[in-house]
This record gives sequence, C-alpha cells and structure tokens, in this order.
Amino acid sequence: MNAAQIERGSAGAVPPPGAAEETLETRLLRRILRGVGNPNIELVMWNGAVVRPGDAHGEALNRVLIKDRATLFGLLRDTQVHFGDAYSEGRIEIEGDFVQLLETVYRSATRELRKGVLARVVERLHSGPRRTRQNTLAGSRENIHHHYDIGNDFYALWLGSTMAYTCAYYPTPEATLDQAQIAKFDHVCRKLRLRAGESVVEAGCGWGGLALHMAQHYGVKVRAFNISREQIKYARGRARALGLDGRVEFVEDDYRSIGGQYDAFVSVGMLEHVGVENYPTLGRLIRRVLPAHGRGLIHSIGRNVPGELQAWIERRIFPGAQPPSIGQFMQIFEPADLSVLDVENLRLHYAQTLRHWLELYERNVERVRALYDEKFVRMWRLYLAGSTAGFTTGTLQLFQVVFAPSANNDVPMTRAHLYP
Amino acid sequence: MNAAQIERGSAGAVPPPGAAEETLETRLLRRILRGVGNPNIELVMWNGAVVRPGDAHGEALNRVLIKDRATLFGLLRDTQVHFGDAYSEGRIEIEGDFVQLLETVYRSATRELRKGVLARVVERLHSGPRRTRQNTLAGSRENIHHHYDIGNDFYALWLGSTMAYTCAYYPTPEATLDQAQIAKFDHVCRKLRLRAGESVVEAGCGWGGLALHMAQHYGVKVRAFNISREQIKYARGRARALGLDGRVEFVEDDYRSIGGQYDAFVSVGMLEHVGVENYPTLGRLIRRVLPAHGRGLIHSIGRNVPGELQAWIERRIFPGAQPPSIGQFMQIFEPADLSVLDVENLRLHYAQTLRHWLELYERNVERVRALYDEKFVRMWRLYLAGSTAGFTTGTLQLFQVVFAPSANNDVPMTRAHLYP
Repeated sequence: MNAAQIERGSAGAVPPPGAAEETLETRLLRRILRGVGNPNIELVMWNGAVVRPGDAHGEALNRVLIKDRATLFGLLRDTQVHFGDAYSEGRIEIEGDFVQLLETVYRSATRELRKGVLARVVERLHSGPRRTRQNTLAGSRENIHHHYDIGNDFYALWLGSTMAYTCAYYPTPEATLDQAQIAKFDHVCRKLRLRAGESVVEAGCGWGGLALHMAQHYGVKVRAFNISREQIKYARGRARALGLDGRVEFVEDDYRSIGGQYDAFVSVGMLEHVGVENYPTLGRLIRRVLPAHGRGLIHSIGRNVPGELQAWIERRIFPGAQPPSIGQFMQIFEPADLSVLDVENLRLHYAQTLRHWLELYERNVERVRALYDEKFVRMWRLYLAGSTAGFTTGTLQLFQVVFAPSANNDVPMTRAHLYP
Repeated sequence: MNAAQIERGSAGAVPPPGAAEETLETRLLRRILRGVGNPNIELVMWNGAVVRPGDAHGEALNRVLIKDRATLFGLLRDTQVHFGDAYSEGRIEIEGDFVQLLETVYRSATRELRKGVLARVVERLHSGPRRTRQNTLAGSRENIHHHYDIGNDFYALWLGSTMAYTCAYYPTPEATLDQAQIAKFDHVCRKLRLRAGESVVEAGCGWGGLALHMAQHYGVKVRAFNISREQIKYARGRARALGLDGRVEFVEDDYRSIGGQYDAFVSVGMLEHVGVENYPTLGRLIRRVLPAHGRGLIHSIGRNVPGELQAWIERRIFPGAQPPSIGQFMQIFEPADLSVLDVENLRLHYAQTLRHWLELYERNVERVRALYDEKFVRMWRLYLAGSTAGFTTGTLQLFQVVFAPSANNDVPMTRAHLYP
C-alpha cells in the first residue's frame, strides 16, 4: 500500500474510492497534517502505513516516523509541544533533511494560520499569558539559569572560539563563524561610534566576547551585566587572561540594577528575555544612564507580527522568552524620548549562524552525548534545526536598533562609516 | 526700564521687590513664557515693555515683538495657532534669527511637556480627533488640493530644478540642493534594488521627479499615482519632454485605487497625508500589489512619540497631515505580513533640505509677494523656518522604511550596496 492509495483527494474532502481501507489512525494523521496546512511531507506509522497530503505530487518528500499510538494522540492534543517532546524521546524519527522538513512545516503552518481572521485572533489571544515564567527579578534568574548555566563546556563545543551565542554578521557569504562573530562585534561598535576613552554599559553580556572586544579594539571602559553565574565566571577568566580586567568589569546582577552614566548602552541578545511588559522600564533606565550625547544599540530576535516564541522552544529551551515585533520594540523608546536612528534586519545572518552552529554541534555530538544523554542531544538538535527554519522562513527576524536621546544632534549623517 | 528690572526672580515665583511696576500685561506675558517652558527669548510689548524669563543671563537674545493687546490675548488662548496667525498678519515681528528663535522655543516647550505625566496624557488625548479634516477619499482630495495646487510656479521658486518636495539626501555636507535630491532618488532606487525591465508603482508622486529618474536611470516602467491635478499635469509635461511618456504613466487617482502587481512599491512623502487610521488598509494594498519577490519603500516625516503635527501647520498649511511614530508606522506592515528590512532616520537631512529651501525662498521672496501677498509670504516663511526648527530639535523625524513580503529571501545580506 502506498501513500497515493491512502489519499488521493485533497485533504478534508470526502474520502476517495477505496477509502474503506482508511483506519482511524490514518484519518487522525490527516487531521494533524491539515492542522499545519498540509505540508509536503509524509507521515509513517509504526505499522508502516503512510499518510501524505492529498495535493502532494510525486517528488521525494521528507518523512516523519511516528513510533506508537500514544505519540499520535499526543500530536492531536498539542502538535507543537508534543512533536518536540516526542522527537527528544525518540518516539518520532526523521528521514531526510531535518531543517528542510521543518521549513516545509513552518511555511505551510504560517499559510494556514493566515488564512482565517479567526486564527489570527487566536494567535493574539496567546500573547502574554502563555509564557511559562514571567521575568520578575527572581523569575529572570530562574529562566536564565535554566538555559545559560547548562555548562560552559557544552556551549564551547559548537559556538566557536568567540563563545558569542547571538546572530553573527557575514560581510561575505564565505565568512567563517568566528570571522562573522568578530564582524558582528565590529558592526555593533561602528554603529555605536565608540571612541577611545569612552565608557560603555552592556546589559546581558553572555560570555563577555563583545565587552572584551570593545575594550581591546576600541579603547573603551566597559561595565557588563549578566545574571548567569557560569557566564560571568567564564568572562572574568577571559578578562584576566587578556589583561583586560582593569578595563572591563563583569557584574553579576540584573540589568535593572544598572546605575551611573555611560557614553553608550549596548545589549545583544538579552531583550528576548526581558518581556514586553518590562520594555517601558528598560527605556526609562536607558534614558537615565545616557547623557545628551549618548547613543545605544539593542540587538534582538524579533517577529513581523506580535506573538509568542514557538511553544516547545519556550517550554523546554527558553522559558520566559518572547521575541518582539518592531511595534512592540518601540515600547522601549517611545515613552522614553529616545530617537530611533537605524533598524537593520539580519534575519538571514541568523539562519547562516545557526547552520554553522548545527554543523559544529553534529561534529561534536558524541561529546555532547557523553556530557548529557541521548534525550538532551535530540532536544538541542531540534532546537537548532527549528531555529534555522524559523529564520529561513521568516517566522523569526533579527533586529539591530540604534538610538539616541532625541536632542542628540551629534549623529552621523549617513551610514557609510559602517561599510569601510 | 529694562528687562532685568521687570523680572528678576524665576518665572512663577513671588513677584520680586519693585514688582509694583508689574502690569497685567507683563504678568500675562510671563504666563505665556512659562507655558512654553521659559525659553531664552525676549517678549517686547507694543509699549516697549520687555519680559524675559527669570533665569535668563546677559547673553544676546532673539526677540518677539507683540504689536497689540489683542495679539497678547490671542496667544493666551492658543499659543501655537495664534502665534502663527499673528506672525502671518504682521501683528508679531521677530528680531534676530528666526530659525534659532523657533528652535529655542521648541526645545523649551518639549522639556516643559515632558516634565509632567499629565502633560503627556494631554498630548495623547490630542491624538486623532484634533486633525481638521479626515483622509476619506473626498477629504484627501480637499486636503491635497489645499496644499499642492497652490501653483507650480510658486514651488518652482524654491524647490530647485528637481521639484522634489521631500527630504533630500546629502552624501557629503557640501552637496547642493539639486545634487542632494538626485542622491535621494538614487538612495531610494538602491534600497529598492531596481533592475532594468522591472515595474514600479508609486503612491503620491509629487511633480514626478522620482518616477522619471527611476525610468531614465534604472530602466524600469513606472505607474505613479497622485490626486493633485496641478502636479500630475506638470509631471506629464516633463515625461513628454524627456521622451519617457511610454515608460512612466502618471495616473490622477487616489492610492487606494492602485491595482495590478509590480516588482516594487514606493511612496515618498505621501504617508503624512494618509492618517494612521488608514494604515492597515494601505498595508493590505501593498501586500496585494507585491508578488513574493517584491519589495517596497516608504519615506515619511515621523515623530519619536505618537502625537500630532504642530497645530498651526496642521491648521493652515497641511490639513489632515499626521507624522507617525515608528510604532504607528508598523500598523502598515504588521497586520499585512510584510517584513521590515531597514529603517533609516534622515532627520538632519531634512533640516539641511529646509535650510536650502528657505535660502531660495528668501532669495525669491519678491516674486512670491508678486504672485500672492504679504500674508502668504510670511505664512510660508514661518512654515519653512518652523519645520527647520522641528527637525533640528528632534520634534520631527524622517523615516525611510524598506520592506518585503515575509517569505522573500531574495534580500541583500548587507547594506554595503547603498554605499558604493
């Protein structure tokens, strides 16, 4: 029995002749496919039965193998979250190109979602309350610990030598991961127009790569905040090794504790963890720490439309995370009298960064397995592949926003200085 | 009697010793100064009495001469609108640098407005209903006729040879007005990545400068919409003179009538007249006319914070006009599944453009007076000087937004191609 025999009509139509063979399971699988917009993939059941969308043509498809009936029912209840859990636990296997399969599903699910106004309303209703943990001071600590304190050794296996865990910047398609991360540091520093002797405050500094680069190559003094204990420890070690500990201070504290004034404010990859409800607070903080001649940059994953992170990623990987639309992003700046000077969308750079991370990850997968277990290996593979698909399909965006206090006229007339 | 004798204490404080000399008029003038945040200017009454802010120091100030008591009471009722009307009618004169004086007032008024949360609430309440005329199909025609059909001869006196009536782009500070307008056309075309043989639709084409430049230098076919009869007539004449009438079609119709599909959508300086309430309609229209590989650009005056245009300008010069904040701007793109790729703030370019316009305007002011009358001359001087001050002080912004349908991956990785 092949797929064409099981399903010839378009999905949702009256069962075609020969449908007497249809089982409850195949009908349910077709319902799951319809729910995500009938992507061009095959679902294969534990008994070998195959279901594919009615409008699929003969081309080679990627396949999802569903290993037991319980998984099928889980997918019916909550496709997004259960797919992730079942894949992590080995109850779902993939045949073919994992990223391509996820892209196919993301594209068709997005089309499906946009078909009906109702669906859009449902998506909006999901805004806000769905997040598993709020970003209060204690909540943020919990959320950040969950993800960033897994172990520096683990991240070192696939982030490259910069340990930058944010979108890189590829000046040319041939750039390596390390080159692109350093190019990102420089792109950010140029956008901030850093001058030797100036001071910079960084909110959410990861393993310290950008802070150290700014001090070393632009001659600035940096105070860098982070609530991940593991990352701060690592960053301080790097500062000492580079002899930069007099010029870069790593502070283990929440961004909400930032005081003083600085020539520049920078935050790369923290905003995702702030939560839209805290944006006006962040804006007031930035306005307070920037003098009239100051300027700032925020780099964050975003979305075209307000909404939540993919449910499984928010549940299992990034609790409390929420990528903003540009409209939401502006809730930082508009109430705080900050003027937005430049917004750049680097979506395709993140897709390329993730391809490079995934490649390194698979190259070192035995060492990941040795550090953790098979479930962990699969969770992180899905997360990296799913994020790649998110950026290639436009489900996710990456925004770099440059801003300054509104009265600051010492801003460059053109952006030519970014392209030397 | 000099200013220092009239007012020594800080404005609003208990009258200083010697205040027996204070008249009702000087007290009222001080109230007006307080209302706009005590700018460092002098108010001189018809009887020679002078009022200046209490904290003013000895430096040379710009002066506002108020010629009669009725004008004083008008300013008390509605400072913004009455100042404009009284200046136009010669009941107020300026001594000193007009632009600098307006900058001083804009800066202090903005500070004053931001002091109190209440003031901000009042500003928000003004959003929406204050505009004198809504932008329905008929309303837009009325509004556009009011401003753009004054007479092509008048605009030709001070817009330069391109007749572009929007913010120019100065690649270097030395660029002339005409060079900067042509550089703006090229900047827009590069952002759109126009290729020979492609089709472009333009919403609001002014006197046709950009449409003709695109056809002539980028080899594209253009359909350009405008509801100003005078502008369309002029643009058609230029197309014929350049032999471009086969490649540029000027359509005298509302942007809401745009049909068909085009490789690119462009709109420079029309959004100010659309009205935020119509942004989702504009977004749906753009989504409809752009194929999957399409891209677009909107260039508009904007603001850091949602709010209205300066009241006198909206009342007398630009009925129905409203510059959006970026957050409001996004109401075009977010519901329409359009992805924002690039936002550039060209505020200081508009200040420079306006300086050049004002210079040409004053050089040709006798011819303006011959075409119209003294009141018209003064209205337009105030409008050009006030707009200059709006951009130099950050009351107004200029945003260029590049966007594409969210699934379009044929977008450049970097913006280096804009800076050849």
